[in-house]
Order: sequence, then C-alpha cells, then structure tokens
Amino acid sequence: MRSLTVVTGNPGKAREVASYFAGILEVGHVACDLPELRDNDIGTIAREKARCAYEMLNAPLIVDDTGFFVDALAGFPGPYAAYVQDTIGNVGILKLMEGARDRSAHFETAIAYADDAGIRIFRGILPGTIASSPRGVEGFGYDPIFEHDGRTLAEIPLAEKSRISHRGRALAALREWLICQND
Amino acid sequence: MRSLTVVTGNPGKAREVASYFAGILEVGHVACDLPELRDNDIGTIAREKARCAYEMLNAPLIVDDTGFFVDALAGFPGPYAAYVQDTIGNVGILKLMEGARDRSAHFETAIAYADDAGIRIFRGILPGTIASSPRGVEGFGYDPIFEHDGRTLAEIPLAEKSRISHRGRALAALREWLICQND
Repeated sequence: MRSLTVVTGNPGKAREVASYFAGILEVGHVACDLPELRDNDIGTIAREKARCAYEMLNAPLIVDDTGFFVDALAGFPGPYAAYVQDTIGNVGILKLMEGARDRSAHFETAIAYADDAGIRIFRGILPGTIASSPRGVEGFGYDPIFEHDGRTLAEIPLAEKSRISHRGRALAALREWLICQND
Repeated sequence: MRSLTVVTGNPGKAREVASYFAGILEVGHVACDLPELRDNDIGTIAREKARCAYEMLNAPLIVDDTGFFVDALAGFPGPYAAYVQDTIGNVGILKLMEGARDRSAHFETAIAYADDAGIRIFRGILPGTIASSPRGVEGFGYDPIFEHDGRTLAEIPLAEKSRISHRGRALAALREWLICQND
C-alpha cells in the first residue's frame, strides 16, 4: 500500500485523513505546524523577508513591513493592512468601529537590516485614534481615518508626515544605529 | 562609505531611503518584490507549504489551506479567514454585511499533494450565502453564519458536513486521483 504523511499541528485533521483513506493508503502523521508565513508580528515578517533577500544579494540590505492595529478590533487588520484596505477599505473599518468606545489604534513599521553579522530589527510606532469619518486629501490607505494629535494623516503635509511617521521613526532608529557602527 | 541595498518593488521607497542616508551610506536598489507569503490564492499557499514540508520529509504528503470568500466584501476575508475570525469574528462579518444585497460567499479548501513527481493541487468549493444572524451549534468558526441549501453549517451534523464540505470535496478529488494512480 502506498503511504501518505499528513503534516499538521491538528491531530483531528490527521485522523480524518487516515479514516478517509483507510484501505487505500497507509497514513502517517508528522505533528508540526509549518512556519505560518502569515505571522502576527511584523518584525518576524520583515526578518523572514530579509533572510530570503540576503541569500540572493550577500550584501547589506533592508526590507520593511508595516501593520495597522486597531485596539477595539483585537488588533485587526494588523499585518494584513494592505489586503484589508483593498477589500473592505476605510468604509469597512469605520463600519466595524460603530459604537466602539475605545478608538485607539497604531501603525507599526519594522525595518529588517541584514548583513554578514545577521539580521537586526528597527521598529517605529505611531499611536493615534480612528476618526469618526474620513478627512484630508494627502497620503493614501488608512491616512484619512487615522488621527494623530488632532489631525488625520491625510491632513498632514507629506514632508511633515515622513518625519513623524512610523516609517520615519523606524528609519531614524536604523540611522542612529548605523552612525554608531561607523564611529 | 558603507553600502546598503534596498530590495523593494516600490521605487519611491528606494528613493526615500537613498535621500535619508545621503552622506552616510551608498544606497542601491534591487527592484524586486519578494515573494509575498500572504498570497491571495490558497492553492499557492498550500503549494508553498507542501514544497517546504517535502524538503523535510522526502515522502508523499499532503498539506491544506482553507479560505472564506464573501463576494460583497471583495473576497474578504479570503485566505485570512482564521485571523479575521480571531479578531473581528462573526459579529464583525455581519456588521460589514449590513445593507449588502449580494450575500453570496464560498469556502475553498486547497489540498497540496507532494511526492517525487512534484506537487499537485486538489480544490473543493462550497458555495452559499451569509445568514442574517448566527444559527446552530455544530462546527466552529464561520459555520453559524454560512448558509448552504437553507441551513447554516452549524445546523448540519458533522458527518453530513464532512461529506458535502469544501474540505470533503477536496479530499474526494484527491482520493479519486490516487485511486487512478494505483490502477
């Protein structure tokens, strides 16, 4: 009889497959959850991208990943910010926030720097709140519904936004570290 | 001066980094989008998991991935069904569906079978609609809000659900193919 190994952290799934193929296949089970590439931590995602890129380049490099986390939605959309923006969008987020008292949220960028010494993560966080309706014309994505210090990101000129943003803060942390390395 | 390569499909990001580190680092740019592990197609996700698992095992194996696609939400939550269930949950999906005329949705499971001949994908799809409110006590996840032929999946006994489900259909397609291979 041919054999088949089910790789899953869920023993119920392995049993289901074993009974489904009884008499047809010898079914084994390796109890391991494969590395979930859809990680909840953007630092982990950036690290994995950097590892992969460094294998190609073998030269110092950075990659980054950004997430958007809404407290009242248990962190949603988190690392899936881009996908959620493309599907339910700002209209969907505002709908989900109807009646929510806690409107706090934050952006986080993780920059992964890779060189022959390994990979180092630099994070930048921008705290704020979800606005009651979209405001402003600058930027893109969640900018019109994300308020920081009384203005939405779409109400802040790009040059100023670049300085204060999650991405700007992560870049600043990386620059500071690089300058120290050069000394 | 030390050098730094930015790996990104977005030339704007590469320019931003170059100007940010002017005078500190020589910034190069490799214009490539790294393989997005958060793919929209569950067949692609399952294929990548199978490839990775086969490297460990070198024996015939299957892995699977399941997505939940709501038409009125542009396919959301798609491959992120598990993450979305853990954050905004069924309450969130029903909120997003308020006022939606088109309530059609489907589950899709992709099973990736790997052996020394390569990887083959078997898909199973279960079409249905989003219920107006949760019903039933069987199953888990989206089952109480997903209607198929007049009943929610949470109103269908497990044995019956296993036969008709997306996962059952994908397993049936795999079994049929395996039996033909054995002939």
